Amino acid sequence: MTAPEPSRLAYVPFVSVANMMRLIHRIGISEMLSGVAAYIEEDFHRWELFDKTPRVASHSDVGVIELMPTSDGAVYGFKYVNGHPKNTAEGLQTVTAFGLLADVQTGYPVLLSEMTVLTALRTAATSALVAKYLAPEGADTMTLIGNGAQSEFQAMAFRAICGIRKLRLYDIDPEATRKVMRNLAGQGFELTACGSAQEAIEGAQIITTCTADKQYATILTDNMVGAGVHINAIGGDCPGKTELHKDILSRADVFVEYPPQTRIEGEIQQMPADFPVTEMWEVITGAAKGRRDARQITLFDGVGFATEDFSALRYLRDQLETTGLYEALDMIADPDDPRDLFGMLQRAKTADL
Amino acid sequence: MTAPEPSRLAYVPFVSVANMMRLIHRIGISEMLSGVAAYIEEDFHRWELFDKTPRVASHSDVGVIELMPTSDGAVYGFKYVNGHPKNTAEGLQTVTAFGLLADVQTGYPVLLSEMTVLTALRTAATSALVAKYLAPEGADTMTLIGNGAQSEFQAMAFRAICGIRKLRLYDIDPEATRKVMRNLAGQGFELTACGSAQEAIEGAQIITTCTADKQYATILTDNMVGAGVHINAIGGDCPGKTELHKDILSRADVFVEYPPQTRIEGEIQQMPADFPVTEMWEVITGAAKGRRDARQITLFDGVGFATEDFSALRYLRDQLETTGLYEALDMIADPDDPRDLFGMLQRAKTADL
Repeated sequence: MTAPEPSRLAYVPFVSVANMMRLIHRIGISEMLSGVAAYIEEDFHRWELFDKTPRVASHSDVGVIELMPTSDGAVYGFKYVNGHPKNTAEGLQTVTAFGLLADVQTGYPVLLSEMTVLTALRTAATSALVAKYLAPEGADTMTLIGNGAQSEFQAMAFRAICGIRKLRLYDIDPEATRKVMRNLAGQGFELTACGSAQEAIEGAQIITTCTADKQYATILTDNMVGAGVHINAIGGDCPGKTELHKDILSRADVFVEYPPQTRIEGEIQQMPADFPVTEMWEVITGAAKGRRDARQITLFDGVGFATEDFSALRYLRDQLETTGLYEALDMIADPDDPRDLFGMLQRAKTADL
Repeated sequence: MTAPEPSRLAYVPFVSVANMMRLIHRIGISEMLSGVAAYIEEDFHRWELFDKTPRVASHSDVGVIELMPTSDGAVYGFKYVNGHPKNTAEGLQTVTAFGLLADVQTGYPVLLSEMTVLTALRTAATSALVAKYLAPEGADTMTLIGNGAQSEFQAMAFRAICGIRKLRLYDIDPEATRKVMRNLAGQGFELTACGSAQEAIEGAQIITTCTADKQYATILTDNMVGAGVHINAIGGDCPGKTELHKDILSRADVFVEYPPQTRIEGEIQQMPADFPVTEMWEVITGAAKGRRDARQITLFDGVGFATEDFSALRYLRDQLETTGLYEALDMIADPDDPRDLFGMLQRAKTADL
């Protein structure tokens, strides 16, 4: 006797790390960054639809594990993500992640995916999308301070979405900068390795800070930042972790994803609770102004929000059928008679052992 | 050129539905229910260690999707679970679930498992464990009102842990009762199908209610419940879903898992916010009294708490090495140099396409 085959719903499409990498190469990384950015932009337009909540964090001495759920009413999604800055020294990723989409009507999962690589793409796509609205016109030069795992993705997204061609790189560890120089060689960038943050920001219209220390750091001080730049500050993303001197925040117009989360985790945790910010969804829908003039300093205090992961997973889901780059995971028990879970278990014994 | 093999940490052990069912038959369901109950009991002893938070719920018109995270400081766990009462009519499970354990030190997942079947076990194991502390001495007869997917698991757990031998069954749908009669035939129970709830509770020392309607229902009214019984009320588990008339709650001593969650989701949502309850961890550690006398009505207002899923996943994890009943899931990106995610992606292209 063989057990009846589970129904199609019992299998959840799963995108492994290997299939995610195949997918990126199949689609092309620039194409995929633009595609993910388009889905993020679309979901910012639908912002008011979303069930929004700050992430659910479990902190320890060495790091944090977070769940980031959201829903647009038809689809539910969440991401599991950790942040352990000390991991790098142990040969591990600072950030690993996976994510899930489910059908709100049935509660059944419909996609499970690695998200370490996908998060790198969505973070870069979000930054570049925001810069499309905020960066000074004609920007072609970006500074990258912090040359870790996220930096090349930022570079690729800003090229695909904002037309950045010149990169000025700095990291306290010159080996990290050499890694970026190697990885981006032959990608059509003009690359300059710099000996200091000060040197790196010379002539750049966009300054990206993506460092990973879990402490109050000051990557940029006030006197370093001239008029007319866009700062893309994405390294600060938990309480106690910031990158910018607060005087810069006072001089800049600050743009955020979701204020209740950013006030806890972002650069603006250094500022009073009523420090004025503009929400990006308002800029994208046209309800609020983005850049007003050429001399203004715009600052994106990016911490990463659940809807962006949701958008990235939606994009991914839409690629599955044409690419076939997934496995079917036997994750949902699905007895013929839903009330007969015990009977399914008993029949499995006869069928299997 | 082949890409370097990912390290062991890149693979997450995954227990599919098929492997979960194999595991239950390999270990034996009574043995496994007792094993899971022992881990739950152990974690109730360590109650004060746990990072506790009410579940994070996303409600819709037709159901709820929830994340239930917790941590004991060394291991982090969460469960994804939905509750969609209308699913049954569509041939789907009311409740499906999966869960995860991760290492707090690194944030890396160490176990992913189906939990639809495992939740059925842990729910039953929790109820029986609680009854071990609260039920009248010498209890051998249990009423099962609501003969859905959870009912046989309750029966098996109460036999393994509390010595229940006689079952009195009732469901508004007689077909559900016939299903339980079939499934439990030959398991050594004395089974009685009853025509009403009133009839079902005659002569029983333990009354289990596990119905699934998402509405204020009254499965038991006050006059039906005599002195000296233990009520195991587990069907109510979300706002608006209760099973008992509030007069029963007033006459009984009510025991709960985690009051902030139970006051929202349990039977006691019908009572004032300061309605007195006793926490089960206090009974289990001896800090509070359980059953005081033979005529007392004890009532377990069970809603299912995150630590119980954590315990079940811990139990499961401890069975993996000896049984080998899991697959290795390529879920965590793990570049040789943790800062070189982009390089890993580039090398995958050369290796794979």
